[in-house]
Amino acid sequence: MSRPVKGFRLSGVHAGIKPDGALDLALLVADEPAVAAGVFTRNRVRAAPVVISERRLKAGICQAILVNSGNANACTGKQGEEAALTSTRAAAGALGTATKLVVPASTGVIGVQLPHKTIEVAIPSLVSGLSADGASLFSRAIMTTDRGPKIAETEVKVGRTNCRVLGIAKGAGMIHPNMATTLAFVITDAAIGRHTLQRFLGRATGHTFNRATVDGDTSTNDSIYALASGAALVRRVDEKSAAGKRFGAALEEVLESLAKMIVADGEGAEHLVRIEVEGARTDTDAVQIARTIACSQLVKTAIHGCDPNWGRILAAAGRSGARFNPDHVSIRIGKVAIFREGRPTMTVKTEAKVTATMKRQEYIISVRVGKGRGFGHYWTCDLGHEYVRINASYRT
Amino acid sequence: MSRPVKGFRLSGVHAGIKPDGALDLALLVADEPAVAAGVFTRNRVRAAPVVISERRLKAGICQAILVNSGNANACTGKQGEEAALTSTRAAAGALGTATKLVVPASTGVIGVQLPHKTIEVAIPSLVSGLSADGASLFSRAIMTTDRGPKIAETEVKVGRTNCRVLGIAKGAGMIHPNMATTLAFVITDAAIGRHTLQRFLGRATGHTFNRATVDGDTSTNDSIYALASGAALVRRVDEKSAAGKRFGAALEEVLESLAKMIVADGEGAEHLVRIEVEGARTDTDAVQIARTIACSQLVKTAIHGCDPNWGRILAAAGRSGARFNPDHVSIRIGKVAIFREGRPTMTVKTEAKVTATMKRQEYIISVRVGKGRGFGHYWTCDLGHEYVRINASYRT
Repeated sequence: MSRPVKGFRLSGVHAGIKPDGALDLALLVADEPAVAAGVFTRNRVRAAPVVISERRLKAGICQAILVNSGNANACTGKQGEEAALTSTRAAAGALGTATKLVVPASTGVIGVQLPHKTIEVAIPSLVSGLSADGASLFSRAIMTTDRGPKIAETEVKVGRTNCRVLGIAKGAGMIHPNMATTLAFVITDAAIGRHTLQRFLGRATGHTFNRATVDGDTSTNDSIYALASGAALVRRVDEKSAAGKRFGAALEEVLESLAKMIVADGEGAEHLVRIEVEGARTDTDAVQIARTIACSQLVKTAIHGCDPNWGRILAAAGRSGARFNPDHVSIRIGKVAIFREGRPTMTVKTEAKVTATMKRQEYIISVRVGKGRGFGHYWTCDLGHEYVRINASYRT
Repeated sequence: MSRPVKGFRLSGVHAGIKPDGALDLALLVADEPAVAAGVFTRNRVRAAPVVISERRLKAGICQAILVNSGNANACTGKQGEEAALTSTRAAAGALGTATKLVVPASTGVIGVQLPHKTIEVAIPSLVSGLSADGASLFSRAIMTTDRGPKIAETEVKVGRTNCRVLGIAKGAGMIHPNMATTLAFVITDAAIGRHTLQRFLGRATGHTFNRATVDGDTSTNDSIYALASGAALVRRVDEKSAAGKRFGAALEEVLESLAKMIVADGEGAEHLVRIEVEGARTDTDAVQIARTIACSQLVKTAIHGCDPNWGRILAAAGRSGARFNPDHVSIRIGKVAIFREGRPTMTVKTEAKVTATMKRQEYIISVRVGKGRGFGHYWTCDLGHEYVRINASYRT
């Protein structure tokens, strides 16, 4: 069980949105209005709670996040926006705070109106259940098709005090029934300015959630929130200081753990693979190559079949748009070179080693494309029968 | 059986590259050096025959194309280039023409040296088998995992004469064992200038092969060749004339038929779907939206499951990068509206109709994203268990 973060309480209940009786409503509350930042989906189609959250978080301050699962409140028009506003108003009333300090988040089926009355009725029990130890309940109440809750935590020294950074996420990467929304919530008791927090969050998201793919689709609801209570009573984290660097690294560590959990949780996914590209002309080129390999259906099916298919990896790199000389490409799976300077190098002996690596739950595919300084990575998983079964058998 | 095209003879034999005794060597010969054009893979990793063909076709003239299946001659270095050069030299010798007028094309496994001696030994029987009726043999000799040969033909009136346009292609879209190379060969007895032919071929490829996806991967060997013999003895096709427009349309018709055959031949593919996007700001935007929908794993698995999942279509459009207002989006499957002006519209009654449409082998998904004039389409197929089975079970 995760340890409490000073200044925050959480809870989760079954309100009745999900028909099966599972937890479906969660609340995260700061004792005092907290410094807040957010990163939201770039999809042009955006759910009502995303639009409202982004607008309210512009002020850089927030006291509570009301999250429901089972309904994404997307493609629901004015009525959907009203439902989200009404729900946050009800939560604010019960908490005795301003409505603009409460932001909504939703995940679940799209195109169905949010049952805001069901939510309002459940708010008193949700509020009375708030507890410093509520992370576990909260993490379960935001799940949709997740195989399990996703919590990551770490500590970071600011001055003489250890501040805590706790992250909770949902998202099964592969997508059922409609789209796998990624929602992530990070809370910390460090003291930090709103602009600094926003920059740290943006950067950490770029290095973690934006370097992870399951099937390349982006949802209408993807959102990442960060709240800092300052309740650890330490001095403010300055962006350029050593403490700032440590805080940025801690945030990235928590988001990296959550992003890996999400990729690994892809329905049917058996392998979590880190694609590392080095020697590219620039970091941008390297990430572009890594992304193209990570998103290739052919590479992902080869990973599923534990097949060291260098041809598919090379061909994906070749169509990535990045410039490199194919004669300078080398590919390793785990520690074994399967392709060196443009030629296959696998032998019967090394193949056994490679196959053993590929049977592991987690491993690395490294691609060197030249002598440049560009480096980048991407997390991916395999594409197997379970993915097809789940995503083809679902009926709208 | 296709009818002969004046000025061309074709043949196909089993040389011994494929271990199973299937046809694996093909030859296409013009009686006199023909006007020639080519379009080649944009993958940075390019097979030896692609590099040589592109170089030789720059002259705009060609007399013969030597094609082998069973070996892609890719990632084979200097030795592979030598093997391709030697093979074309042998063919040129047997045909009594200049080596530079013979271009090579290869498809099959990559990273294995081309057995050029096997090819040379078979060239005499290949040449003696040349026939005006050889299209069928040729089409079978270039196959790899194709379920069947792919031939399309049409006629076009130039002056008072009907000229013929014949296309032969291979490619199973989905990709086994390494990458499904697309090779296409178009021959015509029309008379046409080399630059005009190149422009027509480029444009027709852009509208057909470049609007078709199975799994988004591009091979190291993709090539499309066009040869015009002028043997119909009509006046030259002028690009701007009515005959020119008809010729361009005929070329596009033939390539469109071949591209559709390739998508429909994806291993395990059960549905061939045309994604049509209208009302975008520009044609480029429309094609970008159509491509993103066509390449979405989630849309493709929904097509496999005959699931009218508007949410996945909408979400793919939303992340395409094109600008549009989600509240103005309407989606039809066949003739039935499932989403109108940003809201789902499916009823129990219409759902039965939609499901019936989605069970068909071929149908259209139309997406209107606004009131702009931009229009574009993309061909795609479903993603099913066969795809995973074939691509995951193959061992390098």
